[in-house]
Amino acid sequence: MNKIGTYEFIAEPFHCDFSGRMFLGYLGNQMLNAADFHSTDRGFGMKYLMTIQRSWVLSRLVIEMEEMPMQYEHFTIETWVESAMRFFTSRNFCVSDGKGKIYGYGRSIWAMIDTETRQPTDIYSIDNGAIKEWIVVDKPCPVEKGGRVKMDHNAELVKTLDICYNDIDINGHVNSIKYIEHVLDLWDIAWYREHRLKRFEIAYVAEAHQGDQLSFYLEQITENEFYIRLMKTAPESNDAVEICRCKVVFADMNE
Amino acid sequence: MNKIGTYEFIAEPFHCDFSGRMFLGYLGNQMLNAADFHSTDRGFGMKYLMTIQRSWVLSRLVIEMEEMPMQYEHFTIETWVESAMRFFTSRNFCVSDGKGKIYGYGRSIWAMIDTETRQPTDIYSIDNGAIKEWIVVDKPCPVEKGGRVKMDHNAELVKTLDICYNDIDINGHVNSIKYIEHVLDLWDIAWYREHRLKRFEIAYVAEAHQGDQLSFYLEQITENEFYIRLMKTAPESNDAVEICRCKVVFADMNE
Repeated sequence: MNKIGTYEFIAEPFHCDFSGRMFLGYLGNQMLNAADFHSTDRGFGMKYLMTIQRSWVLSRLVIEMEEMPMQYEHFTIETWVESAMRFFTSRNFCVSDGKGKIYGYGRSIWAMIDTETRQPTDIYSIDNGAIKEWIVVDKPCPVEKGGRVKMDHNAELVKTLDICYNDIDINGHVNSIKYIEHVLDLWDIAWYREHRLKRFEIAYVAEAHQGDQLSFYLEQITENEFYIRLMKTAPESNDAVEICRCKVVFADMNE
Repeated sequence: MNKIGTYEFIAEPFHCDFSGRMFLGYLGNQMLNAADFHSTDRGFGMKYLMTIQRSWVLSRLVIEMEEMPMQYEHFTIETWVESAMRFFTSRNFCVSDGKGKIYGYGRSIWAMIDTETRQPTDIYSIDNGAIKEWIVVDKPCPVEKGGRVKMDHNAELVKTLDICYNDIDINGHVNSIKYIEHVLDLWDIAWYREHRLKRFEIAYVAEAHQGDQLSFYLEQITENEFYIRLMKTAPESNDAVEICRCKVVFADMNE
């Protein structure tokens, strides 16, 4: 079996935004699906891990796009393991039209947890470290890794939101991509008419659940670059806990 | 070309809810995509209609499911035109595993509008009424048509919500399925643990746009049956306008 998994998708019109470009959230979920198909076919997918009380947890995700597929366009997601350490593995993505045109790339970092204790567990313990056999070292992923997003305490509270049924995925907590969608909803269509999303970076800190309230704190760094911190407040609690931190980079539409 | 269009999909794990069942919203969007693929292949799709200042507008949708596909399951959406009159056409859907097991059905009613005037136009005027050649009369769709949802004035205001970027589709207004997702978010996971969604009925009255605020009015009819009216308030306006009306029927989980 090839070390690189290749999955084909269509930018169906009803997964596209007002301009006919596919929603980043839809692409993000298809990246997660590709990651799961790839790992399932190779013996370390979520469904198998559930049977041994383990699960993958997404720790970081970077998506950087030169262009977003337009409605009706076919696109391909390639995904592969770039490295695997005892407690973290990095998995990359390449989004293309399958014929040489590259739309963009993704980088992700995953931990494996014990689903009972929610503590990190040893990735090498699965099938005697079999994941190491799937590492690809010669496939380029020419976008920067995610870095630490340093936010000061002047970030402005711009939105609050209650977590609902549709936010929660099979892991029982908020779907990793839903945070991205909620963050992208901080800008309006007038903004998206003038700007395209170039890079989205997210680092996950804790999990949010149904009933939690999310608070969005925004800091504008340059004209087209923003940092966002999401905090959750559990029902009947006054303590806010950091959930994730994002860096969003736009480009002017004609750049 | 077959009068019935058949499209294959997968219930990818990241389009499934906490219980591993596919989200109804995802199914709804794939029904709309199937409808568009079917009509595009037969000469009356949205993309062609845009070139002649026309568009399909969804007027009613009913989805009734005996069972929802589980994560990783392949499913098939068949869609066909049941009837076509001058100002309305009805299109049905059958959701199955492609091997004889039926998950459920859908019924939809569509109008065609002039995209400049937003007024209804004559469906028969497209290619000399060519749509009539695609009518299928002998394929059953054994679920009831949508009816008028009569609500009294005691319905309770249960939620308000601002329309954002991710709500808006290629038509420039709120995606028809987004209303369904927002309505289904009125119930929490504790409810969905005990109840499965059996039937969702929605009648569209007007279009909502980014910046509008939606208000949700709920009326409980029986233990498992609810009526919901959505109103929109445009920015800097005090007038609320009805957007759509829904009927939601749940079944106890073990029924």
